[in-house]
Amino acid sequence: MPDAVSLIHVKRDNARPLTAAEIRWLFTAYAAGEVADEQLAALLMAVYLNGLDGAELRAWTGEMIASGERLDLSGLDRPTVDKHSTGGVGDKVSLVLAPLVASCGAAVPMLSGRGLGHTGGTLDKLESIPGWRASLSNDELLAALASAGAVIAAAGAGLAPADRRLYALRDVTGTVESIPLIASSIMAKKIAEGTGALVLDVKTGAGAFMAERERAVQLAETMVALGEEHGVRTRALVTAMDTPLGRAAGNALEVAEAVAALSGQGPADLMEVTYALAGHMLELAGISPDDPGGDPREAIASGRALDAYRRMIKAQGGDPDAPLPVAALRREALPAPASGWVTRLDARAVGVAAWRLGAGRARKEDPVSHTAGVLCLAKPGDYVRQGDPVVELHGDDPARFGPAVAALDGALAVGGSPPAAAPLILDQVGA
Amino acid sequence: MPDAVSLIHVKRDNARPLTAAEIRWLFTAYAAGEVADEQLAALLMAVYLNGLDGAELRAWTGEMIASGERLDLSGLDRPTVDKHSTGGVGDKVSLVLAPLVASCGAAVPMLSGRGLGHTGGTLDKLESIPGWRASLSNDELLAALASAGAVIAAAGAGLAPADRRLYALRDVTGTVESIPLIASSIMAKKIAEGTGALVLDVKTGAGAFMAERERAVQLAETMVALGEEHGVRTRALVTAMDTPLGRAAGNALEVAEAVAALSGQGPADLMEVTYALAGHMLELAGISPDDPGGDPREAIASGRALDAYRRMIKAQGGDPDAPLPVAALRREALPAPASGWVTRLDARAVGVAAWRLGAGRARKEDPVSHTAGVLCLAKPGDYVRQGDPVVELHGDDPARFGPAVAALDGALAVGGSPPAAAPLILDQVGA
Repeated sequence: MPDAVSLIHVKRDNARPLTAAEIRWLFTAYAAGEVADEQLAALLMAVYLNGLDGAELRAWTGEMIASGERLDLSGLDRPTVDKHSTGGVGDKVSLVLAPLVASCGAAVPMLSGRGLGHTGGTLDKLESIPGWRASLSNDELLAALASAGAVIAAAGAGLAPADRRLYALRDVTGTVESIPLIASSIMAKKIAEGTGALVLDVKTGAGAFMAERERAVQLAETMVALGEEHGVRTRALVTAMDTPLGRAAGNALEVAEAVAALSGQGPADLMEVTYALAGHMLELAGISPDDPGGDPREAIASGRALDAYRRMIKAQGGDPDAPLPVAALRREALPAPASGWVTRLDARAVGVAAWRLGAGRARKEDPVSHTAGVLCLAKPGDYVRQGDPVVELHGDDPARFGPAVAALDGALAVGGSPPAAAPLILDQVGA
Repeated sequence: MPDAVSLIHVKRDNARPLTAAEIRWLFTAYAAGEVADEQLAALLMAVYLNGLDGAELRAWTGEMIASGERLDLSGLDRPTVDKHSTGGVGDKVSLVLAPLVASCGAAVPMLSGRGLGHTGGTLDKLESIPGWRASLSNDELLAALASAGAVIAAAGAGLAPADRRLYALRDVTGTVESIPLIASSIMAKKIAEGTGALVLDVKTGAGAFMAERERAVQLAETMVALGEEHGVRTRALVTAMDTPLGRAAGNALEVAEAVAALSGQGPADLMEVTYALAGHMLELAGISPDDPGGDPREAIASGRALDAYRRMIKAQGGDPDAPLPVAALRREALPAPASGWVTRLDARAVGVAAWRLGAGRARKEDPVSHTAGVLCLAKPGDYVRQGDPVVELHGDDPARFGPAVAALDGALAVGGSPPAAAPLILDQVGA
């Protein structure tokens, strides 16, 4: 029989891969309290530093899935496909994409999380809509999916509970930023949610958790392999997150921008990423743009995507016609130091500013402000005159504006000529 | 102000050395419960894999010392010098050495530990003497030292308490075998005990925790540097532990052999190591063999060393004249496969056999048998006839003999000619 210290030694010394039976024992014993938090913490650090190979990672992820229930979506009359983003600043793509893909004929069972750090969480954004609630029972979830074609809801406690405990432990032990641990955490939840296909949006650049493109590709490859191994058709795009996506960062501000996008008024960068992801999702779901109703651009132009959004919001108690809450205070900031073209507006700085204004949380038990955030008045490629404010800060607490402005220090560059167009879609991983 | 996760990141990423202030904060916060066991466990694994540099280790050890009291032995009328061994099979050197060095004019304040694993603990051995007790108050310790010149006692709870907690955590998290962590654990206790000088016996070979000589030298160098940095004159010998030292492994069996050694009847290998360590201890204490009473060989030959031993045992309630307990069962084992010279008798196998017979403990709360152990009837260099038993097993529980015999499988080699003489003293570290 394995024991915790021996398994820690194996991983610490990189002696050999852990076997599937050993990994099973580890998860079972941890759940039973026979392996202590400090033992798993030491193992996680050894995994952080020495990695997990493909077979270990498959077993590890399998145990996270097996720790809870796996939803059965096979009763739906449509193919299921989901999207997951590793998180970026202004990344409201899910709000547009889920109803858009639903309006083209797939079902989108998007179980999502809350924001932590400088990137927002999809559930936090939707909660700025009066009446909308994130928590659904499995029956409510299936009913919402059948009626609206798309559902964005909180992953229930029954889904990969081992991941929840492991994530909390990684958070306090400095073992978050590990490719195999990130990959298994994301994929265990997505596989357990029961989707038939999955497109991953792995963000890279200044505003992403995975700043280096090479590591982002590695993460994408790792997750695609895990999905395929567990029977989920999986593809990943690596996309740029150097500047905010769209112009809004903050909960209600992003909902408004998403509704504009569904109404055909979306900013170009947001629509480029959204259409790229929609195309891959529909392809994996077996829907072609030539199929009746299968063309995403037509779905937006015709208003079908917006209709799907309204049904999705209503199915979860939200009122899509209610006005969104607005911040009590607005302040222009970040004046252009010279006239010229914006060449850089740093995503992380904007994210941290929005976070400090109240849009994000420092600890997972903190509440978030629905209204706080940052609007980008100019973005890379835009021409500004000297002294023009480049951002507008929104918030309710005057004390938060100073720290938000401080976060923007050094975030802006203005040059004498327009910057070269930077591609948004950098890599594709998966067949 | 530092926080645990940031410090873990620094060590995890090998970004830079931790500062003395950060290490101080860590120990203080851990003692206060503000850093959790799982956080320290992750840090210990990162230290295990990425090491501590000289300045970090000095600060780390300093905090362990500062976590408790530091004894003041300056009131004694003699120089103080101690010895510490990293542990070997049949290593009863302390029992001979402490009274021997005391009888030559130094004071030996030997605070010691119990055995864990296949090597015995000095306190466990002495506790086989009727009446002898390991725990002394600080006042009792000073009185025993003043009257007998040597004391071997349990390190009190007030000495480096941070080491006690850290060691317990390392024990369950697979982070024991780390040179900086071993060095700081040993040296913090020895420095806190207040000795003016220290000789380390770092064992290497099959029966030692540090099997590789190169790592043993590294550990010796690390400990010598720590001692000198904290004002303790420190020297180390790296000595061979491939075969048991002397012929006895087991508590009362080793006491009997130690008494024989003090009476001038010690086995050659035990005496070689003992005299080498005694010479270095006395030299560090400023005592020359030419000083009156300063010659260890004369101290044994004259009976002064044995007298010192008797005073030392009596000062702690022991009766040196009481017969030692004897095992209920004895069984010869390990027959020579052929006639010839013993070329190998594996120290670890003999240690494990003694352990399984009851001489050692698997968990630190287990009791040990005073009587169980192994006597080596032949050792490398001895001639045996085919079928001659090479060991005699001692124990009280018949069920333990089978597993003990199994531990000896493959431990013996007999050849057609005597083995080349193997040196016992391999390296000397320190000025």
